[in-house]
This record gives sequence, structure tokens and C-alpha cells, in this order.
Amino acid sequence: MYTKSKYLSSGKWLSRPRIVCGIMSGTSVDGVDTALAKFYQTEDNKHKMDIMGFHYEPYSKATRNLILDIIAEKITISQVSQLHFILSEIYANAVTALCSKAKLNINKIDLIGMHGQTVWHDPAEDKKTPVRSTLQLGSAPALAAKLNVPVVSDFRAADIALGGQGAPLVTIFDEVFIREEGVDIITLNIGGISNVTFLSADGKTISAFDTGPGNVLIDIFVKKYFYMDYDKNGKIASNGELIPELFESLKEIEFIRKTPPKSTGREFFNKQMVEEKIESLGIKDFNSEDIIHTITRFTAWSIAENIRLFGNENSKIIVSGGGANNLCLIRYLNRDLPNADFISSSGLGIKTETKEALAFAYLAYRNIGGLPGNVPMATGASRPAILGSITYPL
Amino acid sequence: MYTKSKYLSSGKWLSRPRIVCGIMSGTSVDGVDTALAKFYQTEDNKHKMDIMGFHYEPYSKATRNLILDIIAEKITISQVSQLHFILSEIYANAVTALCSKAKLNINKIDLIGMHGQTVWHDPAEDKKTPVRSTLQLGSAPALAAKLNVPVVSDFRAADIALGGQGAPLVTIFDEVFIREEGVDIITLNIGGISNVTFLSADGKTISAFDTGPGNVLIDIFVKKYFYMDYDKNGKIASNGELIPELFESLKEIEFIRKTPPKSTGREFFNKQMVEEKIESLGIKDFNSEDIIHTITRFTAWSIAENIRLFGNENSKIIVSGGGANNLCLIRYLNRDLPNADFISSSGLGIKTETKEALAFAYLAYRNIGGLPGNVPMATGASRPAILGSITYPL
Repeated sequence: MYTKSKYLSSGKWLSRPRIVCGIMSGTSVDGVDTALAKFYQTEDNKHKMDIMGFHYEPYSKATRNLILDIIAEKITISQVSQLHFILSEIYANAVTALCSKAKLNINKIDLIGMHGQTVWHDPAEDKKTPVRSTLQLGSAPALAAKLNVPVVSDFRAADIALGGQGAPLVTIFDEVFIREEGVDIITLNIGGISNVTFLSADGKTISAFDTGPGNVLIDIFVKKYFYMDYDKNGKIASNGELIPELFESLKEIEFIRKTPPKSTGREFFNKQMVEEKIESLGIKDFNSEDIIHTITRFTAWSIAENIRLFGNENSKIIVSGGGANNLCLIRYLNRDLPNADFISSSGLGIKTETKEALAFAYLAYRNIGGLPGNVPMATGASRPAILGSITYPL
Repeated sequence: MYTKSKYLSSGKWLSRPRIVCGIMSGTSVDGVDTALAKFYQTEDNKHKMDIMGFHYEPYSKATRNLILDIIAEKITISQVSQLHFILSEIYANAVTALCSKAKLNINKIDLIGMHGQTVWHDPAEDKKTPVRSTLQLGSAPALAAKLNVPVVSDFRAADIALGGQGAPLVTIFDEVFIREEGVDIITLNIGGISNVTFLSADGKTISAFDTGPGNVLIDIFVKKYFYMDYDKNGKIASNGELIPELFESLKEIEFIRKTPPKSTGREFFNKQMVEEKIESLGIKDFNSEDIIHTITRFTAWSIAENIRLFGNENSKIIVSGGGANNLCLIRYLNRDLPNADFISSSGLGIKTETKEALAFAYLAYRNIGGLPGNVPMATGASRPAILGSITYPL
């Protein structure tokens, strides 16, 4: 049972190593990535991390469909409220499985950072959506009560409220744990949406933003044509050929060349958008593989184009996210950026799929430490903020 | 600007008086009640309260309609997400107005307890809704960022997760600030839904639950027939006469005589439920006033019946909530419980409409103090829990 003595001031929290679990379920809507790490502060206030374990728990078909229906605006508030609690249950099971894998008793975890499932993220004010907002589901009090572990949640809202994009939030993790002095580094996470962080050799400039699609469009059309959840190793795309007019039309999407800070989501990069293009271009009698190939090429191009326009293509590029395993995507990335040095994040001991879960564990660690989590230069927020809300169990 | 020194342990938090603001927007969906109080702990660990101010801010028609549409399941996830942020803006304005009224600088507020707007609350597991859940909107990180004050929010979820009804949560407030030794006291809050707390003379038994409708049905039909938001002073009801068959049919609703713990909401007591009864009974050619009168009588009866069945009708009954001003409702309550001693909460210095706002200020105070907020005997939860999630601004 948790006791009052766990209510720490930030100074006390940072004074000794803390075991923190991160839970991430991203825009791919495929399942839950969890990661476990020990974070501690050195005498010169530097933060260090010992990675202790990873676990991935796929969503059931029913849960996946419920989430996709919510995002597609097909369901009602009662289902939203129910999903909020269903997700806590799923997260609790994932953390339990992670601890069993890592041979760690759950009550040894000091804190959980729960990203939650994004069902709406719209940082742009326009006529269609007059209010900038973001919404992640997954009830933190329910998770804290179930596992008897404090939970930090709702990481994106404060940055949105301060005029920022609410994304990407992995920047501070990259800055603290991945930056190398004297080397231009780009971290590239290919989840549902792709995002990059530029860590320049001089240690000064940092920029981080979404580049456009990651696996989201590939997954949607692999599901449509091949009834599979994703293009394993990029095999389907490798068997297809380019449909030049579709490729050119996709390249015209304004978001790709938009100046950062910028963020996006499934609200924009979705089935309808691509299908409308296929229809308006009058494309018929195509091979399904060709559509997958073209979308994969577009995804690679959109990432490369952002690096060319806003970064340095002679960088060390550390790739994470499920897309790191799509060999066709990585092949075209290599071709589009011939001077870059691509490295999988697993080379740094960070499994490609679970880097974001680690990043949210770290953001949770910073929250109780009283330290800001957003990097205003990356998100566009007016000032740094402590990200997330803390829920203590009794 | 907030500094790290504000990150207190629970012991430090309780060691000196704290000024806390409570924000409540209830099932009436009429607007926002705010209250300001100084809470402190005496040497024998008793909690005391000095009330500093109240403010009520009505919702605009557009906001009210947006909320009602969400509850009626007519809107999409993008609007849910937007309302989440719109409410923070409204709450920020209400707190600003409260402080200006109370002549207090906002940065003197130590903490805000934000209940949020309930859009779904379903603590019962049944076939129709397989997952017990509750959902309050209003982004705490957005409010904390706007006012630079820490916010506690999401009070009901932990109790639901622990098998409780997630309501009523005012019990602990009643127990600490309203209980009198040697007197059987019942606190009755007539908001959209009515709830009671029994505080027995011997200081031992406590029970608290929703009795059924408060103003919710009256407001709906006053709006339908008279285009008014509520029945001011109960004038419309006073002009009507009883429709006996409708009255009897309403009295048969199972929830009213159900054994506590129990809680309910607009999900059940709504327009459709009453209209179906009127139709199935073949009631025609009635005066509109008679419907209002009958619903008001039913509301009074349902409260009285719960007090007769589960409490002691020879109690001192302290009435709060907007319904305390409905003279027709109070007249029939007095008639249905002739041996009770009715007193308005304003007699204790607590404005009838703002008692719940004060209660959520106190629940927030308890959260940072590391103290549980629910009373398991009242809610049915398996154990006490600290209620709410804390969001610190930077």
C-alpha cells in the first residue's frame, strides 16, 4: 500500500534513482509499447538512464476498431467514456507483462508515464476548427488505482495551451540521451506519423517537428488491399512499381514543405485524402502493390524533403519507430539522402518501437522533478512548461 | 512565475493555511459556480475553513447547447476535444471574476479544484454498457497554464475504478464542516440531480447517495413549454395541479427506492423518459403548468422517500443547490417530511448554489495533503483513495 511518505518534493524526487515505466500508444493504433528504465541525476545535474526492459502488447481487434471509429467520428460520448477506462485496463495488463518479463515486482516502480491514446490533435486554429485542442484517452486515476503506482498523464495539453504544437515531445529525451558533441544528429521516429529532431554538432540549435506520414498511409492501404495490419519488412512495397502521377500529386501536399514548428495526425493523413487523389486523377487498373509502393516512396520522400529543407543531409540519422523495419522505406530514404549515415536506434540499446515509451517515462520523471518537458524552439510554445498531471494512488 | 519551491510534500502543504478555489459545473448545465476559501489544519489535525468568496458565471447559449448535444450523443470527437479546451477558458474567466470580486490577486491562490463538466457517468455494469466509466471535460493543463496556479481535476475516476459510484463526493466536506455532535443531520443538495448525506448524531454512521432528480426534469420541461432556463422560485409549478396518473407512474421508477450506494445522472433522468411516460399513459389536453407541478411534486417525493427509507425523518436537513430556491419544491418537501427541520445552507454562510464548489476546493486541498477524498461507505468503493490528478504550472 502506498503511504504519504511517497509525496515528495521535487528535490527529494531527484535525489535518488527512480524506476519509471513509460506507456505509449501511437497514431499507428496497433498496440501498446511499454519501457522500463532507471533514471538518476549526477552530481553535476546531468540525467542518466539505465534501460531495464521493453514490452509490446497488441490491441485486440475490437479495441483497435473502437479507437479507429472514434477517430473517424463514428461513435458516441458513452463509447468515448468507456474506451477511456478500457484503455487503463489494457495499460495495466501491459505494465504487468512488462514487469514479469523484466523480473521486477510492480511495487518497485516509482512512477508511470502514460501517454494515452490520441483521438484528436489539432494545434492549428482555422475556420473549420475554431478551437485548438488535443485529447488523449486512458484514465490515469483508474490506472493508478489498479497498479498502486503514481501516474503522470496528459502530456500534450499544456504545450497546446501555450500556443505550441503539443508535439513532438521526444525532443528533450533526444537532447539529454542521444545528443553527441561534435556530430550533427537527426533522430527520426517513424510511427504512424514521422517526426524528426535536429541536434546540431555545436550543441546549440534544436528543432523538432512532424514531417508527415510514417506508417499511417501504408498501414491503411495494406489493410484495404491485403487484409494485413502492416507491410512486414516492406515486402509488398518492394513488389510494386511507382505510379508517377499519384506520387507527384502526393508531393504537392502543402504540409510537407511547411516551415516548422508543425505537427499533424490521422485527422489529415487518412484514407479519404489518398482515395480522393486516386479518384480525381482518374487512376484505374493499377496493381494494389503499386499503390503501396507509391505511398511508401512518398513517405520516404516527405521525410527526406524535410531533412533537406530544414536540416542537414550530412547527418547521422538515428531511426526508431515501427517504420525502421520497413526495408523498402529505409532503402528509398537511403537513396533520397545519399550523404546521410543511417543507424537504427537499437544500435544505442533502444528498441526501434519503444523509444517513445522511454521518452514518456523520462517526461514523467521530469514532471515530479519540477522540470519543464517541452522545448519551445521545437513545439512553438510561448514558454517551457511542466508537462502532464500527476495522479497518486493511496 | 511559479517556482520549484512550490513542489511541496504533503506535510509541508498542510503545515500552513492554503487559499483554494473550487470550480463546479453540475448536471444542470447552466453555468459555473466558483468558491474561494482558506483551509487550515489545527494542532489536533482538525480541518477548518474560512470562506472568502463566491462567483457564478452562466454558460453562453452556444456552450450550453454544445454540452447538451454531447450528452445527447449528437456530436463528434473533434467537438469533444474542442469543448475540453473551451471549458478551461470559461473556468479561467470565472476564477478571474471571482478573484476580482473577492479583491484577491490570482497569484495568492495556492490551488484550484476543478470538477469539470460531466458528459458521461455510468457506474453500473450492465449489458447495455459493459464498461463502468465516468468522463469530465475541461483541460486541467490548459487551466493551470492560463492562470499559473496548480489544478487538481478528475475527482471521480479513482472511486469508479475501485468499484464505487464515483458519487456523491461531497460527503467528506459534510463530515468535516457540517457535522454537529448530538444532532442527526442530513445535507441535501438539489442540483441537476439530488444527493443526500446522513450524518448521525452518534458520529458513527455515514451514508451518502443520489436520490434521483433535482432540477433536471423541471428545467427540461420549463424550457420546453415556457422557453425559460428554470422555474424561478417555483412559480410555474405553484400555478399547476397534479396529474395523478403521471405522478404514480414516475413514482414507480426503480432507482428511487433502490438501496444505496447509488448514483445517477442525465443519462437516465431525461426528456425522453418523461415523454415516453406521458405518451404511454395517453395523457392529453393537459396544462403545461400541470406537467411542471407534477414533476416538481415527484422530485420532492423522491427525495422524501429516500430520507424515509434510508435515513431519519426527524433530522435537521440542510438544503443547498439551486433547487433550494424553488419554493414549490421546498413546500412539498416540508409537507412530505413534516417532522424534519429544514434549513438553507446559506444559514451556515454557504450560499446554496456554491456548496459543491467549496467541497471540490476542499477535495483538492486534501489531494496535495495526501489524504483520501472518498468515503467508501457512501460511494461503495473498495477502499479510500486520493481523488484527482495534480497539474502544476511552471
